[in-house]
Amino acid sequence: MQVTDLNTTNIFDAKAMRKFLVHDSAWFRIINFNIPAGQTFPVHSHDLDGQLSIQILAGEGFFLGADQAEIPARQGEILVCDIREPHGVKATTDIRILVTIAPPL
Amino acid sequence: MQVTDLNTTNIFDAKAMRKFLVHDSAWFRIINFNIPAGQTFPVHSHDLDGQLSIQILAGEGFFLGADQAEIPARQGEILVCDIREPHGVKATTDIRILVTIAPPL
Repeated sequence: MQVTDLNTTNIFDAKAMRKFLVHDSAWFRIINFNIPAGQTFPVHSHDLDGQLSIQILAGEGFFLGADQAEIPARQGEILVCDIREPHGVKATTDIRILVTIAPPL
Repeated sequence: MQVTDLNTTNIFDAKAMRKFLVHDSAWFRIINFNIPAGQTFPVHSHDLDGQLSIQILAGEGFFLGADQAEIPARQGEILVCDIREPHGVKATTDIRILVTIAPPL
């Protein structure tokens, strides 16, 4: 058993996204990204089987998808998509996300 | 892409745990459980490969493990363990958890 307190990774850099690895195994990878207001986790995808979730821990912004799609995102919302589907996040306010990727890339 | 707003499942039954399935696929299952104050998600395990995470969305209580282990748990903490390891949650206050199981049982 491993317990991580996400309150300890509530750390922002106004100039760049911060990344905190929570867990990595053969089964899934869990990462907390903190994206400062105005910045974007660019849309990307990988040609691999599997799915990922993106949970908004705090803040407001948009889930990004293919064809410039923008879906409003706020604390408590969780997106699930295939690893192959384009996905990203745009931060309106400072935004914290928890990403779970299964299986890990 | 599928977006779920966990704010819409903030529903408690004082007598019993509530379960809301967020996602289920060959890759992972994501479930929100709402456990009323004083109740326990009993310790259990399954003889299967894989791991799971238990994230405290709101509230306070304890992660439960083998040999009557009790680890204090509060909003923002996330436990990761093997599906084979005994795990459970005890609610001191009303507690909301998000469980991700990879691969699903």
